Amino acid sequence: MSSLRPIAFTRGVPPVEAFPVAEVADCAASVLREDPNILLQYGKSSGYLPLRRWLADQHDVPVEQVLLSNGSLQLMEFLTVELTNPGDVALVESPTYDRTITTFCRNGVEVVGVPLEGDGVNLEALAAAAEQYHPKVLYIIPDFQNPAGVTTALAKRRAIVEMAQRFGFWVIEDVPYRRLRYYGEEQPTLFSLAPDRVMQLSSFSKLLSPGLRTGYLLGAVEVVGEVAKLAEDTYITPALPTEGIIYEYCRRGLLEENIARLCDLYRPKLDATLAALRRELPGAGYAEPQGGYFAGVTLPENLTTADLLVAAGRANLTLTNGEGFFTEPPERVFVRIPFCSLSIADIDEGIARLGQIVRGKR
Amino acid sequence: MSSLRPIAFTRGVPPVEAFPVAEVADCAASVLREDPNILLQYGKSSGYLPLRRWLADQHDVPVEQVLLSNGSLQLMEFLTVELTNPGDVALVESPTYDRTITTFCRNGVEVVGVPLEGDGVNLEALAAAAEQYHPKVLYIIPDFQNPAGVTTALAKRRAIVEMAQRFGFWVIEDVPYRRLRYYGEEQPTLFSLAPDRVMQLSSFSKLLSPGLRTGYLLGAVEVVGEVAKLAEDTYITPALPTEGIIYEYCRRGLLEENIARLCDLYRPKLDATLAALRRELPGAGYAEPQGGYFAGVTLPENLTTADLLVAAGRANLTLTNGEGFFTEPPERVFVRIPFCSLSIADIDEGIARLGQIVRGKR
Repeated sequence: MSSLRPIAFTRGVPPVEAFPVAEVADCAASVLREDPNILLQYGKSSGYLPLRRWLADQHDVPVEQVLLSNGSLQLMEFLTVELTNPGDVALVESPTYDRTITTFCRNGVEVVGVPLEGDGVNLEALAAAAEQYHPKVLYIIPDFQNPAGVTTALAKRRAIVEMAQRFGFWVIEDVPYRRLRYYGEEQPTLFSLAPDRVMQLSSFSKLLSPGLRTGYLLGAVEVVGEVAKLAEDTYITPALPTEGIIYEYCRRGLLEENIARLCDLYRPKLDATLAALRRELPGAGYAEPQGGYFAGVTLPENLTTADLLVAAGRANLTLTNGEGFFTEPPERVFVRIPFCSLSIADIDEGIARLGQIVRGKR
Repeated sequence: MSSLRPIAFTRGVPPVEAFPVAEVADCAASVLREDPNILLQYGKSSGYLPLRRWLADQHDVPVEQVLLSNGSLQLMEFLTVELTNPGDVALVESPTYDRTITTFCRNGVEVVGVPLEGDGVNLEALAAAAEQYHPKVLYIIPDFQNPAGVTTALAKRRAIVEMAQRFGFWVIEDVPYRRLRYYGEEQPTLFSLAPDRVMQLSSFSKLLSPGLRTGYLLGAVEVVGEVAKLAEDTYITPALPTEGIIYEYCRRGLLEENIARLCDLYRPKLDATLAALRRELPGAGYAEPQGGYFAGVTLPENLTTADLLVAAGRANLTLTNGEGFFTEPPERVFVRIPFCSLSIADIDEGIARLGQIVRGKR
């Protein structure tokens, strides 16, 4: 057994200091006393109307284009059912969020990866895949991508929605990290560039709390209506008091200051991650994230994923198997670093252990 | 337009006076302050452990046999995926809960109804259907059935689980109304009679609040484990703060007194319903419910469902289309009376209007 302290580079969860506990508890008591006959009752499958209205105002869309659910993965499941049939092809960035691959596969959809570069997907590969596979959807995380940390450049955003129009596929744009920007300037969403071709998913998991399980969908009213019908058939109504808590939190104007606080909390962790990567893994390949939860690192040496996982385990460093983010095994070993959940000491020490493994010192 | 006041005999929702608002709000603030790092974080797909433990104690099963989800309909969806394949047959009581029929059908399962009598399904018809269709599951609501109000007699419970063993099908026992008993004595659950063949569903929707969307599953640890995996793939974690609120409410010992209060609230409504049926619809067929939410009435005259709905609409009485509770159109017109949600004045007046329609006076 290693005597090193255990460090986990695994799930992208917020650190506990991210949670504004007292405010959330106060919002809960307050909104439940204020609106109990709605929050404690069966309701519409599209979710708590005041929060839908708040989101509609924020995004400047009619409320009919906004639907709430028990987390955005549940919405990904509903969109898969509504926008694809078994045997259809979905395109994803390669690498991408592993649970999206699982969702498509469980619904019988063939998943084809399009190589992700430092500024978004390779456009030639995307066009070729669209030609070859006639995909029904492209799933994309354009801001601070999970797992690679990449943000899609504006020119690529425009090219992607243009291809969606030309080839007739839907874009599912997943933007849970978008507001967690520590450096640089925001790019327009794909939804804003092509509101009739893009369904946008997001959630309050990274901006307030994952346990509240509130995701939301913005997009074409016909698709939102179909998802509402499927949601009603699946669970009648999403959990309402948690949506009420979030509404009350937003209504009090606390969300923007919480986002600013989270950016201040996470920015030094990103800085520490990039500094440690430069110091410990000079030959590795990675995009420098400007926000979000993750840095994605392609290792420089001729190491296999299996070797890495064994060596890391011996060094008390738990890694997610990087192959899970790909539709086909990648050529080089990929490591995701979920820096938000880690202390700076663990970021430094964990990346140092990775460097030692790569240099054959462990 | 009718000048009569509108009355709705439609959804089985609790009346607003059922909600113990102040206690729920207080439990919310308290549990969120007490256990925020669990309740606001991602967690296990099987739900909030303290509530699972509380339920395990209540039902005298190991905690591994208990799983929580966002309402019991979501669990019905998961069980359908786990226990059946498209093309399989499921048996249901005829009539049965309409959303269960929808869930089976959406998953490609053929639904076959077994006639429901005043003391449970007709056993000869059940045996014949088991012989003929080799069903994978039987879905049954043995206590205060939705929509018929029937409670399955003990001898039939024993016979049903014996058939499940003999023919090798699963029983899904749905018991959301079980604790709402206003008269008579509780019968053993099917789960207690055959814990290896019966998966039990229930929820806090009728005992505390539907908006909290907390259903639970009890049963074989292998099936519970498979459902937990599917739940994780679908939504990662169920909504946790609502489960925490319920746990705190139960921990404080408030649930039993709330159930007693609800029974006192609903018993006079059942009494009024049965008195009005005797008075206004002497030729109708119905079981006399001893609890729950519903009385199910088969009308005496040669009236079609379409005629009834039109006449009721003219009398400002909104009815659920009774045919939705059947897999094949019933021979006689069926009306569900969700008495809990109604005032006694509306029960009296609504059933009086029904009687007038049946007697051709409207």
